[in-house]
Amino acid sequence: MSEPSFPSTVVPSLEPPVDPFDSPGYRASVVELLGLLAYGELTAFGRMAADSELAPSLSAKAALARLATIEFAHFERICDHLNELGADPDEAMMPFEAVYDAFHDRTRPADWLEGLVKAYVGDGIASDFYREIAAYLDPSSRELITDVLAEGPHAEFAVTAVRQAIAENPTVGGRLALWGRRLLGEALSQAQRVAADRDALTSLVVGSAERPGVDLAEIVQLFGRLTTAHTERMARLGLNA
Amino acid sequence: MSEPSFPSTVVPSLEPPVDPFDSPGYRASVVELLGLLAYGELTAFGRMAADSELAPSLSAKAALARLATIEFAHFERICDHLNELGADPDEAMMPFEAVYDAFHDRTRPADWLEGLVKAYVGDGIASDFYREIAAYLDPSSRELITDVLAEGPHAEFAVTAVRQAIAENPTVGGRLALWGRRLLGEALSQAQRVAADRDALTSLVVGSAERPGVDLAEIVQLFGRLTTAHTERMARLGLNA
Repeated sequence: MSEPSFPSTVVPSLEPPVDPFDSPGYRASVVELLGLLAYGELTAFGRMAADSELAPSLSAKAALARLATIEFAHFERICDHLNELGADPDEAMMPFEAVYDAFHDRTRPADWLEGLVKAYVGDGIASDFYREIAAYLDPSSRELITDVLAEGPHAEFAVTAVRQAIAENPTVGGRLALWGRRLLGEALSQAQRVAADRDALTSLVVGSAERPGVDLAEIVQLFGRLTTAHTERMARLGLNA
Repeated sequence: MSEPSFPSTVVPSLEPPVDPFDSPGYRASVVELLGLLAYGELTAFGRMAADSELAPSLSAKAALARLATIEFAHFERICDHLNELGADPDEAMMPFEAVYDAFHDRTRPADWLEGLVKAYVGDGIASDFYREIAAYLDPSSRELITDVLAEGPHAEFAVTAVRQAIAENPTVGGRLALWGRRLLGEALSQAQRVAADRDALTSLVVGSAERPGVDLAEIVQLFGRLTTAHTERMARLGLNA
């Protein structure tokens, strides 16, 4: 009996599976992403520390200062990861100085409550963005981000303070709702600038010649999830998004 | 045979030894001291975080920001100790808001190098002061301070940066030497204000009806040691004190 012959095309390939994360292109993309996140944490630290000076009491000042130091701890972890990848954190962060500085210049809180809303909303948007982006990363980068997120939300003290201020003076709610919309608008506008300028970074999500990405529908869904989460956070603060 | 009789004055007393730290007066003094230290750490955090914005590079910014977060960790430890003593940290810090705010208002660094000298000199004076004052405290407060000091000096990165700046432009040395003298002068002037206003606090060192303190000669020596240490620190920075 002769052996059955199969068309060569259906013989299982003996080549090792291709690691989609093992390419100079992917590495460059991850370094850009981590540079973006690291500088975000460093400026969040600096702005929260500065905004803590607006606090009405010493314990309130300490609460926002504590949040700032947590952002700094995240910054240091991301820098360690960049160093492990053989990248220079300074160089990785440099391309994003202008966008973050522009964001913070345009969103300087006029008072303590605006500072609290910014801390809470900003912390929230950043965490959601981390969570979404983690799905596209190699296991060790994903683990870094999961670990950072596992520390949980830190800005919850803002909820009590903002709700109480609105209860005491309902007109505050209208002003802070506008402020929250402005924060989201400025964040999205700077994010768009980054997406337009940094191809390596956007290729993490939209894909490249080496790695398939997601389609437009999925990106629309991603933005939808970010906006929904923002709306829910605003509601927790007692504000209309 | 009759029993020998001893004069009653030489019979050893059976009363328990008096604990010099077990008095409302001492407790009030320690709460004042910890309030002074805590608010010092909290403002050091805020000023260093703000001054880090003057940094010429992202890694320099991160180095001063890191120092700020260490001051904040000290702040939290002191607040924990205050809570253990049943004292409210906010209330304990309140009396010292004005002096620290005055100190920082009068010593706003004009540039990054002035910020570095302030961080290094300020960290140094504070550590020396902690070390001196620890001798007058109960064991658990002394342990807190020893622990905080055991973390070692953190501002050493300033030495390299300042010396390098002077090597590149020797006129910088003259300007920074004046700045260092002003920092010490403002610190001593605010310290004098505290000593004049807060009897409970000064009684830790000069003593009270309940606890003997030190004599004037010893206080003069204490100030001598603080000044000598300051001069040595300035010399390490390459500056004449």
